[in-house]
Amino acid sequence: MNPLLVRNVQLPVSDAVHHASDTAVDILIEKGEFQRIGPNLEAPPGCVVEDGGGAMALPGLVEAHTHLDKTLWGMPWYRNEVGPNLTDRIDNERRWRAATGHDARAQSLALARAFLAAGTTRLRTHVDIDTDAGLRHLHGVLATREALAAQMQMQIVAFPQSGVLGRPGTEALLDEALRSGADILGGLDPCAIEGDPVRALDTLFSLAQRHGCPLDLHLHEPGSMGAYSLDLILQRTAALGMRGMVTVSHAFCLGDIAENERDALLRRMADLDVVIVTTAPPSRPVPPVAACRAAGVRVVGGNDGIRDTWTPYGSPDMLERAMLIGLRNNFRRDDEIAVALDCVTHAAAAACGFGRYGLARGDRADLVLVNAQTVAEAVVARPVRQLVVSAGRIVARNGVPA
Amino acid sequence: MNPLLVRNVQLPVSDAVHHASDTAVDILIEKGEFQRIGPNLEAPPGCVVEDGGGAMALPGLVEAHTHLDKTLWGMPWYRNEVGPNLTDRIDNERRWRAATGHDARAQSLALARAFLAAGTTRLRTHVDIDTDAGLRHLHGVLATREALAAQMQMQIVAFPQSGVLGRPGTEALLDEALRSGADILGGLDPCAIEGDPVRALDTLFSLAQRHGCPLDLHLHEPGSMGAYSLDLILQRTAALGMRGMVTVSHAFCLGDIAENERDALLRRMADLDVVIVTTAPPSRPVPPVAACRAAGVRVVGGNDGIRDTWTPYGSPDMLERAMLIGLRNNFRRDDEIAVALDCVTHAAAAACGFGRYGLARGDRADLVLVNAQTVAEAVVARPVRQLVVSAGRIVARNGVPA
Ligand SMILES: [Zn+2]
Ligand SMILES: [Zn+2]
Repeated sequence: MNPLLVRNVQLPVSDAVHHASDTAVDILIEKGEFQRIGPNLEAPPGCVVEDGGGAMALPGLVEAHTHLDKTLWGMPWYRNEVGPNLTDRIDNERRWRAATGHDARAQSLALARAFLAAGTTRLRTHVDIDTDAGLRHLHGVLATREALAAQMQMQIVAFPQSGVLGRPGTEALLDEALRSGADILGGLDPCAIEGDPVRALDTLFSLAQRHGCPLDLHLHEPGSMGAYSLDLILQRTAALGMRGMVTVSHAFCLGDIAENERDALLRRMADLDVVIVTTAPPSRPVPPVAACRAAGVRVVGGNDGIRDTWTPYGSPDMLERAMLIGLRNNFRRDDEIAVALDCVTHAAAAACGFGRYGLARGDRADLVLVNAQTVAEAVVARPVRQLVVSAGRIVARNGVPA
Repeated sequence: MNPLLVRNVQLPVSDAVHHASDTAVDILIEKGEFQRIGPNLEAPPGCVVEDGGGAMALPGLVEAHTHLDKTLWGMPWYRNEVGPNLTDRIDNERRWRAATGHDARAQSLALARAFLAAGTTRLRTHVDIDTDAGLRHLHGVLATREALAAQMQMQIVAFPQSGVLGRPGTEALLDEALRSGADILGGLDPCAIEGDPVRALDTLFSLAQRHGCPLDLHLHEPGSMGAYSLDLILQRTAALGMRGMVTVSHAFCLGDIAENERDALLRRMADLDVVIVTTAPPSRPVPPVAACRAAGVRVVGGNDGIRDTWTPYGSPDMLERAMLIGLRNNFRRDDEIAVALDCVTHAAAAACGFGRYGLARGDRADLVLVNAQTVAEAVVARPVRQLVVSAGRIVARNGVPA
């Protein structure tokens, strides 16, 4: 791989301060790493030179929660006539999948490529594991991860979408998934879906312990039910010494319980370094980003499903997700919108454990150029990605895969 | 103006049913009107022919509530450091405007053109009238309306952003605005901003009566305060015989009062044909679209301000606003998303009183082509506008003004 010199870009203000400069800089990439960042760099021999045209340089964007395996991205339109409950959606999807023979490999590849074209270079995806589909989705997503290994860093969560208790054999499949390439153990709603919170959580935590792997649990349960489940999760995180290894996705309950109860949970989450992933849905209570962060809890962003049988919404554009996080939290000031961007860049990379992340020397050379004057403009205007570089390779130009 | 024949487009399903066909049709436009819609039309002499390429044809999009005069669209980035309260934002904007000599004419023109490029052909804008700016903003927006008269139908609301009671002389300015080209009288928050709801509403209603013009009132007040103000508005609408002439923008209170209280207000609004304009903000309670419509109340969509000193958000893309309405109301089924689109097409045109609207013979030839298989896809994917026709003229191609 030839060295790559990207000339004439602006760094986001926080990084510019770090580099003691907010004027145009050049970025030199060698062996897939940022080598030098500064004004008027000299091009080494054999170097490819790109003109940044004064664009803003962001680090590669990060998706902390999606479902690549379920997506209908690029397929004929799916007419959604599904009932309103979570169980309606789970059952509908399982039936639909059985009827259509959904190709998780082709679909995950199509959506992952769309993510890359929009500047996402690191991604955590949940993958359905159940007794109907077995490990079929996992094998499809593993093939996609392999195909894109040079361009995208991908974490896979083995996710029992239909619950782990109700369908005997699921636990063994999860165990096999974690031996077959899945990195993280998933789970969901220990009261509302599993119906036996203690047994469900004990099953999941002990499986994670056997594999020494992190947990990333969907928790849709609202109000006091969700707070009760969250308490059980935090008890086990503490008792089993899993500090820093547990993520709670959604945690909607933190948006609709009393503030003092919420703050007590947040204090425990901060102590145990339990991460919250928010999709910031406009239609229901959500963990308030500012309050969570003020309490020392890490909050990062994700789409959840994109264009699937659950929902037609979602987009592989993480700047759009940052905008939705900003809108949901009524972030209007520039410093607030920078927090929304942080949810899909630095904070998300750190929370997921994606290493060598950022725009400093030695970091993996993941870079996104957009025509924006400030970070806030990048978030609200979501300009087309002028250039996307992943691990030192140009992977997209003007929103189109290279 | 030559006739225009747009070949090979799909009609949205409801219109297709109306036309007893869901296969490709041609659309013939003459003298700025739809002349014929059907398969394989013959091109009359001198006709310009456009290939629709199988795209979906939507009627021109409608913006029911924006503030063209305030926008910073296309200007250097405005760093927002404004305090959190409504009064902070009002005061900040008035100070900023006085300090910068904001050019309402150039700014409203820039944003209106961006609306056109994204397919909006009819638009209602509120325009600030106060004792500092006088009628300066009105004159700027009137010039824009004049400049775009052949392409965009625009309604102007004379809007006392700083209140009508607190600054003597405002009422006289509003009166002059309504004699100088404003179509509708605006107002806001009779308790929270005006501080004297009875006197404020009596002032506004009597001014509207003298001019025989409609009212479109901003009502941000939450909960019981907002419900109280709404009750005063409905009392006056009934007493003064202003059925069908009153719009309430925002009406956030309808999202956070008890359901029985809400439904009682909705029944009165339906009887008086009072329209609700929603921006569907994700961060606060809003009138639930489905419940309002079920009660017979018309609900339509708007951005409110776009990229101004109040908020960096907003976009002249009304398909994006439809998406946000869908997300805020948790509309996932195709039939629900069609309602979100209706909020920025048919329902909005009817509620604002924009006539000859639709895709039928004799309607004003406003047409938007997008690459989408269904209405729901048009809303969630918000494809670039392939072609925009307004009153029979091609005004944009592929998102760029023609
Ligand atoms: Zn999920
Ligand atoms: Zn407004």
